[in-house]
Amino acid sequence: MTVAVLCGGVGAARFLRALAMVHPASDTVAVVNTADDTVLHGLAISPDLDTVAYTLAGVIDPERGWGLEGETWQAMGALGRFEPVRPTGSAAAPTWFNLGDKDLATHFYRTARLAEGASLTEVTAEIGRAFGLEQRLLPMSDEPVRTMVTLADDGIEAPFQEYFVRLRHSVPVSAVRFAHDDARPTDAVLRALEQASCIVVAPSNPLVSIAPIRCLPGVDALLAGRRESVVAVSPLVGGAALKGPADRMMSELGLRADVVGVAGLYAPIAGALVIDPVDAHLAGDVEAAGMRAVVTPSIMSDPDVAARLAAATLAAAAQ
Amino acid sequence: MTVAVLCGGVGAARFLRALAMVHPASDTVAVVNTADDTVLHGLAISPDLDTVAYTLAGVIDPERGWGLEGETWQAMGALGRFEPVRPTGSAAAPTWFNLGDKDLATHFYRTARLAEGASLTEVTAEIGRAFGLEQRLLPMSDEPVRTMVTLADDGIEAPFQEYFVRLRHSVPVSAVRFAHDDARPTDAVLRALEQASCIVVAPSNPLVSIAPIRCLPGVDALLAGRRESVVAVSPLVGGAALKGPADRMMSELGLRADVVGVAGLYAPIAGALVIDPVDAHLAGDVEAAGMRAVVTPSIMSDPDVAARLAAATLAAAAQ
Repeated sequence: MTVAVLCGGVGAARFLRALAMVHPASDTVAVVNTADDTVLHGLAISPDLDTVAYTLAGVIDPERGWGLEGETWQAMGALGRFEPVRPTGSAAAPTWFNLGDKDLATHFYRTARLAEGASLTEVTAEIGRAFGLEQRLLPMSDEPVRTMVTLADDGIEAPFQEYFVRLRHSVPVSAVRFAHDDARPTDAVLRALEQASCIVVAPSNPLVSIAPIRCLPGVDALLAGRRESVVAVSPLVGGAALKGPADRMMSELGLRADVVGVAGLYAPIAGALVIDPVDAHLAGDVEAAGMRAVVTPSIMSDPDVAARLAAATLAAAAQ
Repeated sequence: MTVAVLCGGVGAARFLRALAMVHPASDTVAVVNTADDTVLHGLAISPDLDTVAYTLAGVIDPERGWGLEGETWQAMGALGRFEPVRPTGSAAAPTWFNLGDKDLATHFYRTARLAEGASLTEVTAEIGRAFGLEQRLLPMSDEPVRTMVTLADDGIEAPFQEYFVRLRHSVPVSAVRFAHDDARPTDAVLRALEQASCIVVAPSNPLVSIAPIRCLPGVDALLAGRRESVVAVSPLVGGAALKGPADRMMSELGLRADVVGVAGLYAPIAGALVIDPVDAHLAGDVEAAGMRAVVTPSIMSDPDVAARLAAATLAAAAQ
C-alpha cells in the first residue's frame, strides 16, 4: 500500500517523518513543490526538496527547521566583502539568502548534474540516495515553475524568495501566481498519484506550497477523480500557521484564515480534512464546506503525537 | 611611469608583491592569464586572477600559496557524500579541486556578475576593489581560452586543471595547446601593453601561464615591437621551477629546462632575462640566445631579496 504525499517544506517534512513511524518509508512517495526553487550565485536551489531530504535523513537543523545541523557560514560571511563594489542595478552576491557551507555541496551536485543534462527527477533520486532515504522523493515537475507574489503596498510582483526570505514574509500580498512555460507534472508524479492507495495533502501552505502542484495540468483533475482517498492535514491550527505566512496570506487574499478556509480550498480534491481539537468547534463548518472533518491532535511537537496524527490521517483516507 | 606585468599565478603574485615595495601600486597593471580558468559546480573559477588578488591583498594562505588564509573546507567535505551516487560518466561534484568556503564567495560574485552580462574585465576590477587593491588587474581576454594538455602516456588531451590539480602535474605531457574561438586580448590589455613604460614577464610558467597571453592575436607582435623595454624574470633557478611543473614540462616538450631554454622562448619578445646567481655560468649562453642576462638573486623567500629583484628588473627594463 503506497502513500503519496503532496509536500511543501518544513510542515510536510515533519509529517513525512511522522508517517515513517506508522508506514513503511519504502512505500511512501513525496511529491514536492519546486515553485520556490531559485538560482543564486549560479547554483540551482530547491528549498522544499532539500528540507524534506534533510529532515528525513535526520540531519536537519532542529532549531531553524531548514538547512543542516552543525552548519557553518563562512561563504556567506565572505560574501559581504562584495556588497560595497556591486554596481547599482546588480543583484550579484545576495547576502539575504543564507546558504550554509555544508548545504552548498547539495547545490553544487544538483547544479552540475542538471548542467550535464540530468532531469531534476533523476538528480533528486540521487540526492535521496546520498542521504540514505528510503522514501521516494519526486519534484512535482522537471520544468521550472516560479511562484510570483504581488506585494500589496506597492503593487510590485516579486519572486517568492524575495518575499519569503528577503522581506521575511512581513508585508501583505495581494496576489499569487505561478509563472511557467507549459510546465507539466512528470510522468513519475502522475503515476504515483494514480497508483497510490491513498494521497495525503501535507500540512503545508495551501497557497504557495500545494497550489503550485495543483496548478500543473492534470493534477487537480486526477485528485478530484479520487477525492475519497485523498485526505488533507490542515496547516492552520486555531487560525494560525505553525510556521510561515499561510494564515496572513489567506486573510490578505480574502479567504478565511482557519480550517474552514482550508476546507474551502481543498474540498474539490480531498474527501477529508484532519483538524486539531482546538478547531473541533468548526468541524460542522468544515463538513458544510464539503469535507469530512477528522479531529486529532496535529501539532507535531512530540513524536508520539506526530505518529498518532500520521496514523489518523491514513485511517481517514482508508475510510 | 606605468609598469605592466604579464602574470600567471603564484610566482607572478609574489613578484607583484615585491614590485609594490619599489614602485607605486597605482602605476602597476597586471595582465593575467585566464587559460586555466574553469567552471566547477556551475561556478566561474579564475585561479590566476584570484591568486594575484589574494596575494596583493595580503590574505593569501602563505603555506599553500593559493586560497585564503584561515580557510575552512566544509563545502568540500560535504561533497564527498555524493560520490557514491554519481552515475557512471558523470563528472558532477568533483572533490579533487579544492575550493575553500570563504574563497567560494569570490566565485559566487564572479559567476553572478558574468551571468548579469558584465565582462570578466569589469568583474575583475570590482573584485580588485573589494580586496582593496591599488594595482589594476586585467584578465588577458574577456573570451574563454582553455589550455589543453596532451598526456604523453596515453595520448589523451586533458583540460589544464585535470592535469595540474587532479593528476598533480605528476605525469609527462607531450603537447600543450590553447583552445579558443577567436579570443582576443581586451582593448584594456592592448592599451596597457602599448602605454606602459616597461613590461615585465613575471617568473611564471612560460608554457602554460605566459604562452596563453602571447597566443592572443597582436600580443606577441606588440611585445616584439618594443622588446628593449620588455624584461623577463626566469621562473627556473638552477634548472628547477620553484613551484609547479615548468621544468619538467620544458624537458618533456624538448626544450632545455634552464635559463637558456627560457631565453630561447622569450628572446623574440624581451630584451633582457633576469637570472639567479646560481645560473651566472649560463649568462653567456643566455646572451647567445639573444637576451641580455641580468644576474640578481631571484628567490623571493625574503622581502628584501624580493624588493631588490623587483628593483633590478625595473632597472634592466630602463636600460
